[in-house]
Amino acid sequence: MTVRVGVIGAGMIGRDHVRRLTDVVTGAEVVAVTDLDAARAGEVAATAGARVVPTAADLIGQSDVDAVLVASWGPTHAEHVLAAVAAGKPVFCEKPLATDAEDCLRIVEAEIAAGRRLVQVGFMRRYDSGYRELKKILDAGEIGAPLMVHCAHRNASVPESYHSGMAAQDTAVHEIDVLRWLLDDEIVGVQVLTPRRTRHAHAALRDPQIMLFETASGIRIDLEVFVNCRYGYDIQCEAVGEKGLARLPEPARAAVRTAGVTRTGVPQDWRERFVTAFDVEFQEWVDAVAVGEPPGPSAWDGYAATVITDATVEALESGRIVSVGMKDRPAFYAGGAR
Amino acid sequence: MTVRVGVIGAGMIGRDHVRRLTDVVTGAEVVAVTDLDAARAGEVAATAGARVVPTAADLIGQSDVDAVLVASWGPTHAEHVLAAVAAGKPVFCEKPLATDAEDCLRIVEAEIAAGRRLVQVGFMRRYDSGYRELKKILDAGEIGAPLMVHCAHRNASVPESYHSGMAAQDTAVHEIDVLRWLLDDEIVGVQVLTPRRTRHAHAALRDPQIMLFETASGIRIDLEVFVNCRYGYDIQCEAVGEKGLARLPEPARAAVRTAGVTRTGVPQDWRERFVTAFDVEFQEWVDAVAVGEPPGPSAWDGYAATVITDATVEALESGRIVSVGMKDRPAFYAGGAR
Amino acid sequence: MTVRVGVIGAGMIGRDHVRRLTDVVTGAEVVAVTDLDAARAGEVAATAGARVVPTAADLIGQSDVDAVLVASWGPTHAEHVLAAVAAGKPVFCEKPLATDAEDCLRIVEAEIAAGRRLVQVGFMRRYDSGYRELKKILDAGEIGAPLMVHCAHRNASVPESYHSGMAAQDTAVHEIDVLRWLLDDEIVGVQVLTPRRTRHAHAALRDPQIMLFETASGIRIDLEVFVNCRYGYDIQCEAVGEKGLARLPEPARAAVRTAGVTRTGVPQDWRERFVTAFDVEFQEWVDAVAVGEPPGPSAWDGYAATVITDATVEALESGRIVSVGMKDRPAFYAGGAR
Amino acid sequence: MTVRVGVIGAGMIGRDHVRRLTDVVTGAEVVAVTDLDAARAGEVAATAGARVVPTAADLIGQSDVDAVLVASWGPTHAEHVLAAVAAGKPVFCEKPLATDAEDCLRIVEAEIAAGRRLVQVGFMRRYDSGYRELKKILDAGEIGAPLMVHCAHRNASVPESYHSGMAAQDTAVHEIDVLRWLLDDEIVGVQVLTPRRTRHAHAALRDPQIMLFETASGIRIDLEVFVNCRYGYDIQCEAVGEKGLARLPEPARAAVRTAGVTRTGVPQDWRERFVTAFDVEFQEWVDAVAVGEPPGPSAWDGYAATVITDATVEALESGRIVSVGMKDRPAFYAGGAR
Repeated sequence: MTVRVGVIGAGMIGRDHVRRLTDVVTGAEVVAVTDLDAARAGEVAATAGARVVPTAADLIGQSDVDAVLVASWGPTHAEHVLAAVAAGKPVFCEKPLATDAEDCLRIVEAEIAAGRRLVQVGFMRRYDSGYRELKKILDAGEIGAPLMVHCAHRNASVPESYHSGMAAQDTAVHEIDVLRWLLDDEIVGVQVLTPRRTRHAHAALRDPQIMLFETASGIRIDLEVFVNCRYGYDIQCEAVGEKGLARLPEPARAAVRTAGVTRTGVPQDWRERFVTAFDVEFQEWVDAVAVGEPPGPSAWDGYAATVITDATVEALESGRIVSVGMKDRPAFYAGGAR
Repeated sequence: MTVRVGVIGAGMIGRDHVRRLTDVVTGAEVVAVTDLDAARAGEVAATAGARVVPTAADLIGQSDVDAVLVASWGPTHAEHVLAAVAAGKPVFCEKPLATDAEDCLRIVEAEIAAGRRLVQVGFMRRYDSGYRELKKILDAGEIGAPLMVHCAHRNASVPESYHSGMAAQDTAVHEIDVLRWLLDDEIVGVQVLTPRRTRHAHAALRDPQIMLFETASGIRIDLEVFVNCRYGYDIQCEAVGEKGLARLPEPARAAVRTAGVTRTGVPQDWRERFVTAFDVEFQEWVDAVAVGEPPGPSAWDGYAATVITDATVEALESGRIVSVGMKDRPAFYAGGAR
Repeated sequence: MTVRVGVIGAGMIGRDHVRRLTDVVTGAEVVAVTDLDAARAGEVAATAGARVVPTAADLIGQSDVDAVLVASWGPTHAEHVLAAVAAGKPVFCEKPLATDAEDCLRIVEAEIAAGRRLVQVGFMRRYDSGYRELKKILDAGEIGAPLMVHCAHRNASVPESYHSGMAAQDTAVHEIDVLRWLLDDEIVGVQVLTPRRTRHAHAALRDPQIMLFETASGIRIDLEVFVNCRYGYDIQCEAVGEKGLARLPEPARAAVRTAGVTRTGVPQDWRERFVTAFDVEFQEWVDAVAVGEPPGPSAWDGYAATVITDATVEALESGRIVSVGMKDRPAFYAGGAR
Repeated sequence: MTVRVGVIGAGMIGRDHVRRLTDVVTGAEVVAVTDLDAARAGEVAATAGARVVPTAADLIGQSDVDAVLVASWGPTHAEHVLAAVAAGKPVFCEKPLATDAEDCLRIVEAEIAAGRRLVQVGFMRRYDSGYRELKKILDAGEIGAPLMVHCAHRNASVPESYHSGMAAQDTAVHEIDVLRWLLDDEIVGVQVLTPRRTRHAHAALRDPQIMLFETASGIRIDLEVFVNCRYGYDIQCEAVGEKGLARLPEPARAAVRTAGVTRTGVPQDWRERFVTAFDVEFQEWVDAVAVGEPPGPSAWDGYAATVITDATVEALESGRIVSVGMKDRPAFYAGGAR
């Protein structure tokens, strides 16, 4: 069965996912595209042989749209996801699920009311082969009970529009999701340290930041977020447990030995680093919605990410340790299944 | 445009490629399957929603078969490939192109007579991201003119049916193809050294072997073939040039530090090591035949591989240095295009 | 000129340094040994052909003792160092310089009064080839201005006598010294996080701990101290600057590939990891005192280490961020020379 | 007991060993130096507080010379070593033991006649910590019975005076010795391949060369000798056995990540790479001759190295496989002891 997808949002991310659903993923077809900018929608639709639909509501209502992809501007996510859930259609929502925790909760409640999982949030790290190997190692008990995780998330540079809060909302949010999944534990507190600013950040940006998370079971996570590191895109993760440690592999690159040094290349951006993770993420989503419920990051995970990033921004701004005020997890999302 | 593929041969490899064309590659559809064992053909056809066709000739003749995949027993390859070429249909042939150099030449001549490239041979190393990075490094002159290449090809173990000649025909053949491509040079001579046999090889098998190749420009290649190395599947390649060296990356694996050691896993078989290369190989083939000629390993490359492996077997059996008696390369196959 | 050394303290460390001065270092000779336990002193003296002297005061006063090595119980260090300074003799004092900051200051004042450097403190990390390479890289500006340092100090296990404060006093003190030197910066604040305790620590021990230091220039250091990590002795240090990072090398070990994994050994204790650093430390000290002032960690460095470890213990016990209340650095110790 | 050493030869190597015996090694003292160039002898003697002696014969005869170090021009080695043996004095001879196999045999016979080991040859690889770890791994059976060894010996560049035969005599001779020791096996045949010459070698030099050795037990060794590799000094060694492989560690160097690459430095010459091995070699020699017989590379090892390098040069010049015509090993040198 081919999953016919309607796409809301034809910006850079939406366009890339349309290409992915068309050229990379099997079993899917993009049939409709909508965007506030109709010309842009038309252009993207044309690459997939899809039609343009005037509004998101129209798109969700189309009878040949089996599933919805939300790749529009963050503040519009909640409305579109809620509409898709109301229509009983599976919806893949790029992060964030909603920019506001209350809206996330509304989605959670709507999904519970619908009685089955419809929502998946676009946290692609869980589909990276390195993180998956790490999870296998942890789940197998190879390092014993985890006690600490040391992480770094570095970008070569960011545009002027990137503000200090985005270090949590746009950048650390990936670690927040993948660590909750990796550790099968909840983040309950956060503190943010602010080292001396790099001269390569624009004037209003706190960069780098060191985020310190504590989990319910007492695991401590330190995460360096450094978005103007200049040298490339670099993701580090080392989990330390009671009897050993495990480290995320570096991307496989050829070593060249010349002129007195041995050198290997460093990826330059997230597309290069996580392109395969994105492909796997969408293939698994399409395969799952073709036959049942999506198994990936849930609306609850989307809610948790928003609550934790909110707390992280508060910790940054206040300079204090902030408790994460999360609701109790509904039974609906218990276990690995949801 | 969807490329409709007819598959000849429903054994282990055929079945895997049917799955790949169906579940992984976009733009392709398996429409027909044939095999000497009709039951097996039926089983594999069913996984793809394809029909069973009684013979290879029938399959090639079907009007809705746009392209042919030959995955049958090696000695039958030539016949099927020639039939596909005669029918003017693109054909992907698993290695070897033919078990006999004369047959390879017949295919080359038929293709030249057809006036356009129809044949691609299944040498998947050229699609591995590590080899591709190596090629970029060499082509960019980062190590200067290549002088030597040190290689190893190790399998954990082989079945009893694996005989000494297969070290060249089935195993080293991959290095032979990928090195010709990597170096853009031709192999002109070969010698085989036979170290002490491992006790883990069956009695009739010379294992390991060290193959020494010389290219037209004087590059020396040493290739360890060791198919009962026990510990895993391991592919090594290091090119040494006038100003530096470049080394094939190890597969990216998480490091675990526990109980006094740091360890990383080693792939256990070629599927694990080259799964992505196979996927890329078929996607690029499908994309290319949908619009024109296949860009991958040509009939000429298939001929060259057979001539060189024949010389390698002769070198093993005779203990002497053997010159590779290859015809001159037809203009048809000149340059990167063919 | 041979430097004739008198040794105070014939315990494990003293014995090892006597062996080092006798068998490894050139230009030195151990001529006298003292210890509260005369039998132990005799035993150690015999290995070096030295005589036993009844008390530390006697030993320092011997006319053929050119320089003094203090390797006795920590709380006695200050008294012996002060006596050596009073006698105008160079003195190498194992860490800590004194267990109490006031005593350290008294030594600093005595040395300033003496008008020349006599005291060197036993922080051997500065003599490790890896740290020295790191310092060269930082000093050359290869990573730009440092912003963060991520460290780990792991021991396989510790005895029952090791208490929570020793994580700072005995363990982290090495990082505290080497980072002050590496960064040429002062530590001004500290906070300690306490992850969930490992089940492998004895009941009264907070293990692991994460120490967070801030320097005068705003560099942030995170240091994992984990003294029951089980798997070995492991020292990690990664400095991140405005345009790159530099990482302490792993000890060079042979890789073995067998049974599905590639593995390399991890050192099991600090002797194995830093044996060469100790040798270099003593050779350079002997070479220097033979002709002038010792160039290594000074009395001021010893004072700083004690003040910072005191603050770290207070941070651990209070759970608060603690400012390091250090005096202003006297001009006497300004610059690299002192 | 201090070993009083007389040094024959005050060139670059002699001077360096005098410094080593004086400043690095404990338990030794250089008391006399001789050289054809008396001024040079005087200069070097002065650095050690030693006296100049007119001839080698005089030097060997001095009553306060306990042991002799031969670091003169290769062709004079045999004469000096024979004189030292005749005088019953331990003698350390830089490689080669003699430039001629017959002379080596004469030394062997003289030593046997003397009834105890007096001669040690300067093959320092056996004292490198990496090779020692490799030997431990092999001896422990971690990789099973060795079948193949892949080696490379690369220098950044060589002077005009370096001729093709020196690739064996001066360069590969180190691998020849260390592999005989590592494998506890004898080299019985050799073949030399000549890849295309690098443009960076002077006109008369065959560079690189690939030397193929076979041992008595059937192990195959391939050794790339490339003395104008430009990028640095690089020693590689990988032993492959019946159940795994072991690889010589790379020198420990800090990794720097900046400007899109991760890089580590490569040693630039043999002094940098093997300085510690030289130090250990001389310390162990001094320690041993102070109390008994030297345990290091014997006169027999020196003979074997000369016979094998002679065969290698013949193989290079003839292009043929050459059998190594070595005498039977005398019982005197049987076992690890001799």
